[in-house]
Amino acid sequence: MIEIIGPLTNQATASGAGTVGKKPAPLQKQLIERLQQAILAGRLPAGSLLPSSRLLAAEMGVSRNTVVIAYEHLAAVGYVVADKKGTRVSPLSSPAARGEHQTSPATPEAVYAARVEQFAATRTHADNTLPLTPGTPALDRFPLGAWRRALERSMERALPLALGYGAPTGEPALRDAIAAHLRMSRGVRCDGSQVVITEGAQEALNLCVRLFTNPGDIAWVEDPGYRGAKAAFNLGDLTTLPMPVDLEGIAVPPDAWRTHSPKLIYTSPAHQYPTGSVLSVARRLALIAQARRSGAWLIEDDYDGEFRHTGEPIASLQGLVPDAPVLYVGSFSKTMFPALRIGFVVLPGAIAGHAAVALQEMLRGGHRLEQLALAHFIESGEFGRHLGRMRRLYRERQQALRDALTAHFEPSQILGGNCGMHLTLRLPPHLSDQVLAERALAERLNPRALSGFALQPREETNGLVIGYGSTPAEQLAPAIGVLASLAGEMAGARVV
Amino acid sequence: MIEIIGPLTNQATASGAGTVGKKPAPLQKQLIERLQQAILAGRLPAGSLLPSSRLLAAEMGVSRNTVVIAYEHLAAVGYVVADKKGTRVSPLSSPAARGEHQTSPATPEAVYAARVEQFAATRTHADNTLPLTPGTPALDRFPLGAWRRALERSMERALPLALGYGAPTGEPALRDAIAAHLRMSRGVRCDGSQVVITEGAQEALNLCVRLFTNPGDIAWVEDPGYRGAKAAFNLGDLTTLPMPVDLEGIAVPPDAWRTHSPKLIYTSPAHQYPTGSVLSVARRLALIAQARRSGAWLIEDDYDGEFRHTGEPIASLQGLVPDAPVLYVGSFSKTMFPALRIGFVVLPGAIAGHAAVALQEMLRGGHRLEQLALAHFIESGEFGRHLGRMRRLYRERQQALRDALTAHFEPSQILGGNCGMHLTLRLPPHLSDQVLAERALAERLNPRALSGFALQPREETNGLVIGYGSTPAEQLAPAIGVLASLAGEMAGARVV
Repeated sequence: MIEIIGPLTNQATASGAGTVGKKPAPLQKQLIERLQQAILAGRLPAGSLLPSSRLLAAEMGVSRNTVVIAYEHLAAVGYVVADKKGTRVSPLSSPAARGEHQTSPATPEAVYAARVEQFAATRTHADNTLPLTPGTPALDRFPLGAWRRALERSMERALPLALGYGAPTGEPALRDAIAAHLRMSRGVRCDGSQVVITEGAQEALNLCVRLFTNPGDIAWVEDPGYRGAKAAFNLGDLTTLPMPVDLEGIAVPPDAWRTHSPKLIYTSPAHQYPTGSVLSVARRLALIAQARRSGAWLIEDDYDGEFRHTGEPIASLQGLVPDAPVLYVGSFSKTMFPALRIGFVVLPGAIAGHAAVALQEMLRGGHRLEQLALAHFIESGEFGRHLGRMRRLYRERQQALRDALTAHFEPSQILGGNCGMHLTLRLPPHLSDQVLAERALAERLNPRALSGFALQPREETNGLVIGYGSTPAEQLAPAIGVLASLAGEMAGARVV
Repeated sequence: MIEIIGPLTNQATASGAGTVGKKPAPLQKQLIERLQQAILAGRLPAGSLLPSSRLLAAEMGVSRNTVVIAYEHLAAVGYVVADKKGTRVSPLSSPAARGEHQTSPATPEAVYAARVEQFAATRTHADNTLPLTPGTPALDRFPLGAWRRALERSMERALPLALGYGAPTGEPALRDAIAAHLRMSRGVRCDGSQVVITEGAQEALNLCVRLFTNPGDIAWVEDPGYRGAKAAFNLGDLTTLPMPVDLEGIAVPPDAWRTHSPKLIYTSPAHQYPTGSVLSVARRLALIAQARRSGAWLIEDDYDGEFRHTGEPIASLQGLVPDAPVLYVGSFSKTMFPALRIGFVVLPGAIAGHAAVALQEMLRGGHRLEQLALAHFIESGEFGRHLGRMRRLYRERQQALRDALTAHFEPSQILGGNCGMHLTLRLPPHLSDQVLAERALAERLNPRALSGFALQPREETNGLVIGYGSTPAEQLAPAIGVLASLAGEMAGARVV
């Protein structure tokens, strides 16, 4: 037998002088592995009788008990069968045992689902901490001390119970705190029972797709618009239809309701991403009335409604009329920090109770300490104070960015600014936004090409989306100076 | 105007003696809301000219500036239009303004997606902290002190940077630590680049569905088996086919590969849930060979492979032969704690690089401090020591449960026990497992009905799945005593 499976490595010998590296496995484990390999490779063919435990123990220089346990293990997994006559190798259909070569796996390109193909051509993510990155908040201004105290507090109060499974729809305390906050600050009509906690806004969108659509249903998206909405709709095998956006927000052609009746409509009414339009109240009312008539659901992504910089906050679409067919989606990625991964969807009251059973199976809860800490953070007023500080900070940074842009570019081409953490700069047709964004990245600046947000790129979607959330005011003028000289070089090159 | 929108509530007056409750909103906000309500309700019809800011300010008893800002806000959202002639109400399509009554929303039953219907009849979750609950680990034995130190350590080292977006596939340190652990303890062939961090095993299953299937594809599940697999396949609009399970694990009928060629096959080879079978090596090799030939993917859910109680660990299916078409799925919900919500899938090496781009769009990363803390917990050996302690604890508890069951029930009807945190007790046909589980729940005991895990209930799937993970040994005998007398009452009632 030893010529088939080879000698075992003695632990005492191996650990002597001169040996380098790790200790060999225990003899019992070695013996099991050697026998398995010999069986899989066909060196011990099906039906062959193994030596008695006594014989093999003597041959291999191990205790008989070691062999007995090894044989028991091999029998448990079915490598061998033991009966009165002894221990025999089972008939296995190992390709190696039958002398076949393994076929190579299908080529990677061929194995993906059709729904994944959409991502094939996407560029890899640039470093989100670079200056001018849109969507990254001022993390160095986050009140870490207060947050850690809130975490400590929930650990002291809720451990060890909060290690276990929580409510799939999230901690009740957090659902109530979010509902109270949304009622007061965003005019949302809701209570905690309608709030479902998710892993950020993206999972909230996925949840809307799963709850309310079937494959092949039509979904409308703003174009240009948030890429994550298209991704969620594609993953749900919906047919996605781009809808143009103008200064009043999403502009639905009159016929579309009849010819391409939607099941879901993605909107960002408070601050269209990335153009910055505010959805007008006439369009809000028309959308609600038409959606009601068609049995469609409006998704209101209120992704930066908290950071309104001019005048009074724009109230939510959801709260405009009672029982609006609106799924209100939000997250704390921008208002707290991205790695927190807490978002939510507010379901209509008539739906929330009925959906609870399905949601119990679809969601798993968890991250309970963070959820409890966030509930306390909101209720204690810490969150509101942080929002106030961030609003002032972002207002200053936006002004610095606007001043810097105005020094180099045509002011009428600067869009947005009522909300959020970015401005959009339209570019003339001869300056490709993709090329300019790539060259900026080489200079370690990370504005995004506006055309990257468009399903159907047009002349109006040639531009840059420039973030100021994580870039200190004093760095903005030099950064825009670099952008301007890159643009100047590109314009100059065109002449040559 | 005051007769249309009503007088505003003066803050100074309202806060005087005798008033109870909260402070009224600032006058500017009140004025905006009153005007909006009047416009939406049709009391200020489209086209009507609003008073000049000077006039309205005098009438309402507010500063002129308050009215100017209110008008600007209403214009921004499109309630009014301002030109040289003054400020006019916009034409809105408000149903109220047109005297229409609102139609009631569609009945909740009618609005759900077909894929959600599967959940309609599911019972609500019982309290997971009750005795005999399957799948809940011994949370009171979790080394909280060591875990909090690991969290503190990652806060000290990684903040504030780790507040930001992380790698969508998870922290590299954690991916490496998991790969090293799986290579050593489970025989998985992988490195960190193949490991994708997910929100627990359920999201890992959803990810497999999204990456590798299209709607209508066929998926096989073990029957009885893990309900989460069926849920993931249904949510992905796959056609789910139940496969019987016997003492050697999943038993595929010879014709099935030809007649119902699958795209995904869900298996739990180390310890079939809930029957406890170990998948035999002959079937492992046959599954791998057939899957390779058919272009199918095997999902190996190694949900409690870490808690092997008898003999040597059963190595993974993934590592049995090189380049096996296996998606290895695991989680830390049982080995650490459920609320941690960290799971993973190990992709085949040939796929991992190509999938990275798609995964960047599908996943968001996050929970970075917890991921870094877990990486340290694994690398420092804390995790291994915790597993060792839990294995010993669960072995003791299982023995106590087995003894208690043997005192009341037929020992040959007790299944499983090589791994994990539960035993399965088969019941005779005249004792309905659903009824017994319900009566046990009324006594605050939470074993699960075995038939609840079956897609096609049969006589063999009448039984109870009894957890011992979170139930101290000394509570098991009394709890099983209660179960036995409930069963006795049911059997007695049948005779009458």
